[in-house]
Amino acid sequence: MITVVAKNTVKEGKLEEFKSLAERLIKETLKEKGCIDYSLYEDSKNKNIITFIEKWEDMIVLKAHFKAPHFEEIVPQFKDMTEGGDINIYNKIK
Amino acid sequence: MITVVAKNTVKEGKLEEFKSLAERLIKETLKEKGCIDYSLYEDSKNKNIITFIEKWEDMIVLKAHFKAPHFEEIVPQFKDMTEGGDINIYNKIK
Repeated sequence: MITVVAKNTVKEGKLEEFKSLAERLIKETLKEKGCIDYSLYEDSKNKNIITFIEKWEDMIVLKAHFKAPHFEEIVPQFKDMTEGGDINIYNKIK
Repeated sequence: MITVVAKNTVKEGKLEEFKSLAERLIKETLKEKGCIDYSLYEDSKNKNIITFIEKWEDMIVLKAHFKAPHFEEIVPQFKDMTEGGDINIYNKIK
């Protein structure tokens, strides 16, 4: 299983727009083959830090996700709404 | 439920020592009241990025964890083994 942590710092004034798009992305992504979990989290101290934590069966389905129509439509739109972020693709070791 | 993502960049040559200590921390922490999950992940592209992803019942049990004897003994030792990292405490919103 693969775990993805995709952390975003959302610009002031863009939070509602970001969350609304994220909600659409989640709805479509949960229908994808091999998607075990795809959830959205808010930092408890800074509401502008919004993070996806995702579980995928393997790298094959994750790579397919990066080419899914809803991913290609929605994810590029996040760029203008964020001022930073990073993504890590993890394997569980313990 | 609270989700914690604690990301560490481990110094070259310190990886085995870090993982061994992390294993002890995991073993003790899983016995704590209110700990739902406490797992260790390795970045798929950079093996020096080692991240704890944790699930806790609420902030009360998480705050108790920060004062647990094994936390107070082990976590300060991580400092000399890492060259960066960050911790986020999240609430699930979607």
